[in-house]
Amino acid sequence: MEASKPIGLGKSRIEALSDGVFSIAMTLLVLELKLPDLPAGAPEHALRQALIALAPKFLVWVTSFLMAGVFWVGHHNQFHFIHRSDRPLLWLNLFFLMTISFLPFSTAVIGAHPQSTTGVILYGLNLIASGSLLLAHWKYATRGHRLVDHQIDPALVRRASGRILVGLAAYVAAIGFGFVDARISVGIYSLVPLFYLLPGRIDLHWLRSN
Amino acid sequence: MEASKPIGLGKSRIEALSDGVFSIAMTLLVLELKLPDLPAGAPEHALRQALIALAPKFLVWVTSFLMAGVFWVGHHNQFHFIHRSDRPLLWLNLFFLMTISFLPFSTAVIGAHPQSTTGVILYGLNLIASGSLLLAHWKYATRGHRLVDHQIDPALVRRASGRILVGLAAYVAAIGFGFVDARISVGIYSLVPLFYLLPGRIDLHWLRSN
Amino acid sequence: MEASKPIGLGKSRIEALSDGVFSIAMTLLVLELKLPDLPAGAPEHALRQALIALAPKFLVWVTSFLMAGVFWVGHHNQFHFIHRSDRPLLWLNLFFLMTISFLPFSTAVIGAHPQSTTGVILYGLNLIASGSLLLAHWKYATRGHRLVDHQIDPALVRRASGRILVGLAAYVAAIGFGFVDARISVGIYSLVPLFYLLPGRIDLHWLRSN
Amino acid sequence: MEASKPIGLGKSRIEALSDGVFSIAMTLLVLELKLPDLPAGAPEHALRQALIALAPKFLVWVTSFLMAGVFWVGHHNQFHFIHRSDRPLLWLNLFFLMTISFLPFSTAVIGAHPQSTTGVILYGLNLIASGSLLLAHWKYATRGHRLVDHQIDPALVRRASGRILVGLAAYVAAIGFGFVDARISVGIYSLVPLFYLLPGRIDLHWLRSN
Repeated sequence: MEASKPIGLGKSRIEALSDGVFSIAMTLLVLELKLPDLPAGAPEHALRQALIALAPKFLVWVTSFLMAGVFWVGHHNQFHFIHRSDRPLLWLNLFFLMTISFLPFSTAVIGAHPQSTTGVILYGLNLIASGSLLLAHWKYATRGHRLVDHQIDPALVRRASGRILVGLAAYVAAIGFGFVDARISVGIYSLVPLFYLLPGRIDLHWLRSN
Repeated sequence: MEASKPIGLGKSRIEALSDGVFSIAMTLLVLELKLPDLPAGAPEHALRQALIALAPKFLVWVTSFLMAGVFWVGHHNQFHFIHRSDRPLLWLNLFFLMTISFLPFSTAVIGAHPQSTTGVILYGLNLIASGSLLLAHWKYATRGHRLVDHQIDPALVRRASGRILVGLAAYVAAIGFGFVDARISVGIYSLVPLFYLLPGRIDLHWLRSN
Repeated sequence: MEASKPIGLGKSRIEALSDGVFSIAMTLLVLELKLPDLPAGAPEHALRQALIALAPKFLVWVTSFLMAGVFWVGHHNQFHFIHRSDRPLLWLNLFFLMTISFLPFSTAVIGAHPQSTTGVILYGLNLIASGSLLLAHWKYATRGHRLVDHQIDPALVRRASGRILVGLAAYVAAIGFGFVDARISVGIYSLVPLFYLLPGRIDLHWLRSN
Repeated sequence: MEASKPIGLGKSRIEALSDGVFSIAMTLLVLELKLPDLPAGAPEHALRQALIALAPKFLVWVTSFLMAGVFWVGHHNQFHFIHRSDRPLLWLNLFFLMTISFLPFSTAVIGAHPQSTTGVILYGLNLIASGSLLLAHWKYATRGHRLVDHQIDPALVRRASGRILVGLAAYVAAIGFGFVDARISVGIYSLVPLFYLLPGRIDLHWLRSN
């Protein structure tokens, strides 16, 4: 490890802390799924109905897990190209992780109140905070090749930002629709991950640089 | 690390996120074991009986911990041979981790209702989802040597799939028996890890390739 | 990894355990933010008011997350220069991590009783314990170049200690003001991270040594 | 990493999963420390008394954190000398981790019932299971130099086992004293970590081999 460490603070510990926060936040989401206390000998249909009643929380759980996955893939992609760190980057990353660790809370709110405008606004603000900080993180690292290679393709720098902006636009739209009907917002949130699932032109950059 | 990084996205962060989700899901399982609130000066036999009453939850805890272990060993084995990643692999892995993070929930259901058909079906569906995604992950990575070495032994590729299929067949059988008596299903679930504990011919491949 | 391992016990596992404890403690903090159970069809203003009523807990959550970040950056900085470990270092680190894992508890106390002298004293003692152990960790590692390079800049050794001492002085002051008005203490705690956010002369050392 | 990978399955993922389980189990211990719900404007002495009433749980928390630390240091020491893994080692390690993840439960029992014989027996059995599995792990790895270097010092192999046996003897003694007075057992448990804190002759081996 020492041998290849570039000048400046390494990045392996940022990655380790980040992977830790992501994996914990993702796994804690399931704690919101809680079966009500049924008596031990409860009939089958009572258990089945209790599970079915969890359906909205279930949808919100899947959405939040995938949204966290979207941000993790984006973070992973950035650190594929970022080679060293400094204090501002450490703190931009910590603020970003703070918003990720907030996801279980905003998910719990929207899961308990899926038809509430307040809930979908809170959730949208959480995603906007995460997206904006991830964008600031990328801008900071790439401006003037501060923490990336000098040969980095300018098209990559642009595309990575563009992909984050698409998400931000969707979250703003979801908040707007929340004033009409909160279920439209929940629908938008659950569709956003699909956009990021598809391979894009940005993936080609992974094949070239390291 | 940089020096040996193959072309394409590295795999160390997938491994880190996965080990994080596995270790958290495994450790959260114990949160289901909860002693009822006894008064501070409760007699010894009251505490002993409270512990004994936890026996079914205890068995389910051991089973789920070992099942998570089975999937972790399988995941570990795959990444021994997978050398790089791309977007579809990242997402196959994230969906797989989603099913692993769901284990504490389905374990809680089966722990609270060990004699319920609904409970053992839910648990079985969880395991089927995990196994199928792990299989899809392996098929995707090895098809046409997409993300593995070209010298990989075709027998290894086959055997790794075969071992997952054995588990899938057992989970399907357990769901079927659930309609007769849920306790048979729980028995099957708790026996499956024994099959994976035993060294198999697949282990020989670990000695050769890297 | 083997190739570059210095004589003595490596440091990668200390870093991994530490990053694990930090990421979990940071993420558990959010569990203190809990919406009261409102009926499913509760009006918007009820949900909004419930969120607003969480404001003090919210401020305490941000403060504790950032304080944990401050300690993580300090720990990261130390291990940038520490190249090997021994038993006393392992245990100094474990005691330090114990105080970090205590943060969710002291944060819960201050979050539930933000105007209580007892609460801000407990919180301050937690931070003093963390800071003192981090200082002892640094002193132990650098005394006589025990676990660092011989070419390490003495100014760096001094500056890293000095920065921790600034925090310790602030925590002592916060405890003192706690006897006047606990809100002053909470204010001090929430301002401390700002000092550590700013790049300092110590950052220059990251550019030179490894 | 590839370059230095020895023949057979690597060890980095075992270490990562283990560090994950350890850090989570250690951090979850604090969740047992819970302040009773006091009204928002409760007087200072009510909060102080509630904290003082937590003293037994506090002692148990410190003890369990340090015991987990003892096992982590022992595990770390073993993998300093173990260079590769196979299926039996993976599973010995998983069973060991299962006992570590059980610590928050047995700690909760002893914390709620510190004067109960049943509680200290359960806690002792947990520690005996952890110690025995760690011993079996070491015996398996070193027997016939199965997974360690051929030049390993036989005195090291013996000493590492001997140190685990000291702990096991103490846990057996603590269980025995539990039938006299459970507080003696809690005292023994809290003193054991002190033995492991002190540098021993085994530490010298860290300076030589890798």
